[in-house]
Amino acid sequence: MRRSIATVSLSGTLEEKLEAASWVGFDGVEIFESDLISSPLAPREIRALAQSLDLTLDLYQPFRDFEGVDDARLAANIRRAEAKFALMVELGVDTMLVCSNATESAIDDDARAASQLRLLAEAAEPYGVRVAYEALAWGRHVATYEHAWKLVAEADHPLLGLCLDSFHILSRGDDPAAIRDIPGEKLFFLQLADAPRMRMDVLQWSRHYRCFPGQGGFDLTTFTHHVLAAGYRGPLSLEVFNDVFRASDPHRTAADALRSLSVLEDSLAGEQETANLRHDRGSFTPITLTRLPEPVRPAGFGFVEIAATEPAAERAGAVLAALGFAHTRDHRSKPVQLWEHGNTRILLNAADPRLGHTWGGEATITALGIGLSDPERARERAERLSAPALTRRRDPSEAALQSVAAPDGTAVFFCPTGPPDADSWLADFSAPAVTNAHEQRDTSIIDIDHIGLYQPFDHFDEASLFYRALLGLAPTEVSELASPDGLVRSRALSHPDTKSPLRIVLNVSLLGRGPQADADGGAQHIALSCDDIFSIAEDMVDAGVSPLRVPDNYYDDLAARTDLPPAQRERMRRLGILYDHDPQGGEFLHLYTPLLDGRLFFEVVQRVDGYQGYGAANTTIRMTAHREGSNT
Amino acid sequence: MRRSIATVSLSGTLEEKLEAASWVGFDGVEIFESDLISSPLAPREIRALAQSLDLTLDLYQPFRDFEGVDDARLAANIRRAEAKFALMVELGVDTMLVCSNATESAIDDDARAASQLRLLAEAAEPYGVRVAYEALAWGRHVATYEHAWKLVAEADHPLLGLCLDSFHILSRGDDPAAIRDIPGEKLFFLQLADAPRMRMDVLQWSRHYRCFPGQGGFDLTTFTHHVLAAGYRGPLSLEVFNDVFRASDPHRTAADALRSLSVLEDSLAGEQETANLRHDRGSFTPITLTRLPEPVRPAGFGFVEIAATEPAAERAGAVLAALGFAHTRDHRSKPVQLWEHGNTRILLNAADPRLGHTWGGEATITALGIGLSDPERARERAERLSAPALTRRRDPSEAALQSVAAPDGTAVFFCPTGPPDADSWLADFSAPAVTNAHEQRDTSIIDIDHIGLYQPFDHFDEASLFYRALLGLAPTEVSELASPDGLVRSRALSHPDTKSPLRIVLNVSLLGRGPQADADGGAQHIALSCDDIFSIAEDMVDAGVSPLRVPDNYYDDLAARTDLPPAQRERMRRLGILYDHDPQGGEFLHLYTPLLDGRLFFEVVQRVDGYQGYGAANTTIRMTAHREGSNT
Repeated sequence: MRRSIATVSLSGTLEEKLEAASWVGFDGVEIFESDLISSPLAPREIRALAQSLDLTLDLYQPFRDFEGVDDARLAANIRRAEAKFALMVELGVDTMLVCSNATESAIDDDARAASQLRLLAEAAEPYGVRVAYEALAWGRHVATYEHAWKLVAEADHPLLGLCLDSFHILSRGDDPAAIRDIPGEKLFFLQLADAPRMRMDVLQWSRHYRCFPGQGGFDLTTFTHHVLAAGYRGPLSLEVFNDVFRASDPHRTAADALRSLSVLEDSLAGEQETANLRHDRGSFTPITLTRLPEPVRPAGFGFVEIAATEPAAERAGAVLAALGFAHTRDHRSKPVQLWEHGNTRILLNAADPRLGHTWGGEATITALGIGLSDPERARERAERLSAPALTRRRDPSEAALQSVAAPDGTAVFFCPTGPPDADSWLADFSAPAVTNAHEQRDTSIIDIDHIGLYQPFDHFDEASLFYRALLGLAPTEVSELASPDGLVRSRALSHPDTKSPLRIVLNVSLLGRGPQADADGGAQHIALSCDDIFSIAEDMVDAGVSPLRVPDNYYDDLAARTDLPPAQRERMRRLGILYDHDPQGGEFLHLYTPLLDGRLFFEVVQRVDGYQGYGAANTTIRMTAHREGSNT
Repeated sequence: MRRSIATVSLSGTLEEKLEAASWVGFDGVEIFESDLISSPLAPREIRALAQSLDLTLDLYQPFRDFEGVDDARLAANIRRAEAKFALMVELGVDTMLVCSNATESAIDDDARAASQLRLLAEAAEPYGVRVAYEALAWGRHVATYEHAWKLVAEADHPLLGLCLDSFHILSRGDDPAAIRDIPGEKLFFLQLADAPRMRMDVLQWSRHYRCFPGQGGFDLTTFTHHVLAAGYRGPLSLEVFNDVFRASDPHRTAADALRSLSVLEDSLAGEQETANLRHDRGSFTPITLTRLPEPVRPAGFGFVEIAATEPAAERAGAVLAALGFAHTRDHRSKPVQLWEHGNTRILLNAADPRLGHTWGGEATITALGIGLSDPERARERAERLSAPALTRRRDPSEAALQSVAAPDGTAVFFCPTGPPDADSWLADFSAPAVTNAHEQRDTSIIDIDHIGLYQPFDHFDEASLFYRALLGLAPTEVSELASPDGLVRSRALSHPDTKSPLRIVLNVSLLGRGPQADADGGAQHIALSCDDIFSIAEDMVDAGVSPLRVPDNYYDDLAARTDLPPAQRERMRRLGILYDHDPQGGEFLHLYTPLLDGRLFFEVVQRVDGYQGYGAANTTIRMTAHREGSNT
C-alpha cells in the first residue's frame, strides 16, 4: 500500500520535512496548513519540489470549524473554503480534511450540519477536489466516526466522504468494527496514530503524546483491517503530534515512521489471509500488502559484550569470576575475552568496536548477541525494517555474524543456534593467552535474565519499536522511577513466549538530561538469573566483590510491610539483597554490584513462583545507592 | 509563620535536600518516606543532621492505604504503622501523614474507616505521636476534606486530626470555605501546592505538574486564609511534586520555594487585617505574619539595555535610527550608547556588563530599567524576596541605581521616576563622542510595548514568580507555540493596571533544548508600540532596514479568513505586517526585524481597540522566517 506522513509529524521547515520524507522512501505527504503558510515557497513551488522528490501531496489539512454555523458564518466559511480549494488546485492536492466543529458556538443540529457539508461539497465541484470530513474526539457536537458518517450519508454528495483517524476513534474507546459497514468509496482518507494509554484530557493527549503504530497502546492492526475490509484503498498515512518528534532529526523520525508502517502492513497481511478483504456489499480492488520475513523467535542471549578499559575491565572480570564465570578464551584477532558459565557468555572487550580505536574511560554494553535458529531470515527482516547494518572488520576465516545497530548504537548480532552453524562464532576464540585463567565454578547462575539500557531521549519510542519489530518482543512493563536527579521512564520488552525469556529494559530520563542522559546515556546493566541468590551473594563476598550496600532503613521498612522471617531479612540486610512481590504471589530477590566505572553494573536476580517484573519498587534505592557510591 | 518544605520537592539525596532547605532559611522539613528509606543515614543520624542544620522535622509522610480494610489487613496495617511510629520517635517527628485509601479493594464503609482510624490513633498513643489524615483527590472512597473530617470527627481521638493539602482540594474545584467550620486544633498540618490549570487525570497532574504558590492557577491566599481562620497555627509547608524541580539544583529550587511563601504570607497579612483571624467558636493564638514592603507600581520601562558587538550593534543602531531614535549621549565611563525617542530609551552596550569583559558574538538583552516612584522600597522588597543584588563597578559620581538579577541573569534596575531623583541616571551620560549622531525624528513610536525573553528550562516557573513578586505583575496569557524545532511555552506577565502597561513575555523550549534553549537561551526581543505601523514600516524601508519577510502564503490565508480590504492587505504583504484580532474586536498589527545576530530582534506593534494579546497566532510564522533567514 502507499505510505504517507503528515508534515506536522516531522521537525524543520516544509522543505526539510519533504526532503526527509522522500529520503526514507515515503510515497506521499499530507500538507499541514501551518507548514504551508509558514513557508516562503509558493504553492506551485511546493508542488514542483514534491514532484522532484517523487512525493505525492495526498491531503491538505486541516480545515476547521466549518459546519453547524449560522448563515452569516456559513457564507464566510464557504469563501474561506473556496480560497483553500483554489490553493489545492495550485498544489495539486485533491482532498481536503475538514474537522468537525470544535467551537463553543457550534449549533447542535444534524440536519443543518449535513446540509452545510453538502454546500461545501458543491463548492468544491468547480475545483475538482473533494472533502473528507473527520470527527475530532473533542468535536463540539460531532465526536464519533458514526456521527460523522451519519452526516456524510445525509449530505449525500460524491465529493463528500470521511476521513478516519485512529486516534480520534481509539482514544475514546469507540469500537471501530462498524467502520466495515461504511461503503469503501466513502472512506476518502485514513490517518494513523498510536498513543500510550493515558488518562488525560484528549485534546492534550492528542497534541503532545501521539506516536507511531506499535509504539503505543492501541490495536492498529485490527483498526486498519476494518478500514481495508470496508474497501478503503488510499494510503496509510501517519498524522502524529509528538513533542519529541517535533524537535528531533526529521530523517531519524521519518525512518522510524516508515518502519512502523512496514510492521503494520506485515501484520495486516497476516490478517488478510483469513478475512480475504471482500465485503458483503461488493468486492474491491485487491490490495497488495507487503510482507516481511517472519520474525525468528529469539532463543535468549547468545552473548552480551562489554567494552571496558581498566580499572573497569578488571572489576567486571572480578564480578564474573565471583559469580562462577571463567575467562575461557581470547578472540583470535581482537582484544576480546570470552567469559563463560555453562552456556552463558559475556565478552569483555578492551576496545570499543564502534569507535574502531582504543577507548578510554568507562564501561559500556556495546553488543547483544541474540540466539536465533535462522539468522539469515532475521537479517532479511532487519534489512527490510531499515535497521542499519554494521560492517565489521574481520579476518576472512572468522565467523560472519550479521549485525545491525540499535537506535542507541548498540550492536545487535544474530547468533546461529541451530545446525550446522550453532555457536560457530566461538571458533573465533582460542585458548586464552592469559595464564591466570581459572576454572568455571558450579554456581546457581542460570542465564542472562535481562539487560538494561538507557536510551537517548529522542530515540526511546524508536528503540521500543525497533526491538519489537526486529525480534518480535512485546512491551510488558512501563514505569516511572524516581532517581535523586529526576524521574526516569522505563519500558521492559520481552518475548511473549515466556519459555524463551529474552528481556530488554529501556530507560530514559524524563527530561532528557541529568546524569542519566549525559553524553552516551545513563547507567546500563546486565542481570543474571539464579536459583539461590543467597549462596551467590556469599560467594561474591568471599571473592571480595561486595554487593551494593543497601540502607538499613530499607530493611526496617521491609520488616514493617512484609512477613519475611527475621533471620532471612537479616541475611538479606547483610548481603544487600532486595525484595519485591507481585499480587499473584510471585517473589523477586535481587542484588546489585556497585557501578564498575561510573556507568555499568551487574544485577543478580532470583525469580520465585512466576514473578514477571523487574523490581521497579526498589529502583529508587538502587539509584540513590549508586549515586551515593559515586560521590564517595 | 514557620515555613517547611517536603523533601520530595527538592532534588538530590536526603542530605543534599536538608542542606539546601537549611541554606535558604526554611524552618523545617517534611520527611518523604522514600527519601528516608533510600538514605544510608540511620534515623538518629538524620535527626542529628537536621538539628545541626537548625531544621525541625515536621511530618513523616506518607503512610498509605490504612483504613477501610478487612480485619486481617487491619492487623498488618497496625503493625506497619507501629514500626513507623517507632521510627518517628527515633527521628523526633511528632506527626504522621496518613492518606486516604486509594486501592481498588478499599471498603466503602465510613463507620469501619472511622473506627479503624481511631484504632490507629490509639496505637500511636504509646509513641506520643499523632496522625494527620488527608483525603487524596483520587482516594477510593474518601476524596474530599469534608469527608475526611467526617471520619476524623467520628473517630474522635485527640491524636487524630486532619492534614489539608491545597492541591487535593483545589484541583477538584472543591470550595475551601467550609474549612473554617473545622476546629483549629483538629487541623494538624497544612501542605501547600499550586498547579497550572490543566484538564488531565488528577493523579498525573499531581505527580508531575505541581508548583510553588504563585506559579500556578490556584488561589492559595484565600485557601490558606480559611485554614488560619479556622485556627491552624502549624507551619506553612510546601509539598510539590514537579518533574523539573526534581531534576534541578536544590538550592535554586529551595530559594524559589521560600520566596513563594514570603509572597503568600504577605498576601495573607493583607487579608488578616479585615478578617481578624478570630473564629466564632473561640479565639486562637495570634499569628505573626511577616509583611513585605508593598510592591511599587511600575511606571513602564525606564530603559532596556542591549549588549551587542559588531555587526549586531551596528544593525541595532540602524533599526533604532529607522524608528526615529537618536544616539543622544554616551556613558561617561562605559562603552554604552544612549538612544532616545521621546521618553523611550534604549542602551546599546558594547560589552557584556555581566561578564565584566568585552564580549564577542551575539546580541542580547542584558538589563531592564523599571521606572518606579519609590526605588528604595522596591529594593527593600527585592531584598526580602532574596532577589540577588547586583554589585556594579561605578564611578562615585555616578547614579546609584539599585539592581537585582532575574533568574535568567538579566539585570533589573530600579529607575526613579519621581522627584528629586527622576531620571537621575541620565546624568551618567554626556554628549556623544561619535560625530554621526543625528536628531530624533518625530515618528509614531510610543513606548516599549513589551520585551520577550527566553528562559533557562529549569527556571521558567521561578522567573514567573520572580517578576510577579518583585513588580506585582500578573500572568495574562499562557500559550504553546510551534517552532520548526519544537514547541515553545510562553507566559506573558503584565501589571494589572492597564494604564501602566509594563509587559514581559517569558518563553521556554518545551523540551529544554533545541535552538531556543542553547547556551544562554533562545531569541529575545524588544517590542515597540506605535500609532501608525504603516508609516513606521515605510520609514524602515526608506532607511534600508527591511522588516522580516513574511511568506505570501500568509497573506493568502489572511484573505481567506478576514475581511481586511485588499489594498490594506497588499500593503501589509509588501511591508511584512502581520495581523491578529481578538473576540472583543481588538486588532493587532505587528512587524519584526530579522535577527540582528542569531538571537535578538525588534518588533513594532500597533494595538487597536484594546487588543491585549501578543499575536501568538503569528509566532510560528515569525519563528519559521527567522529560521529560514538564519539558514541563508
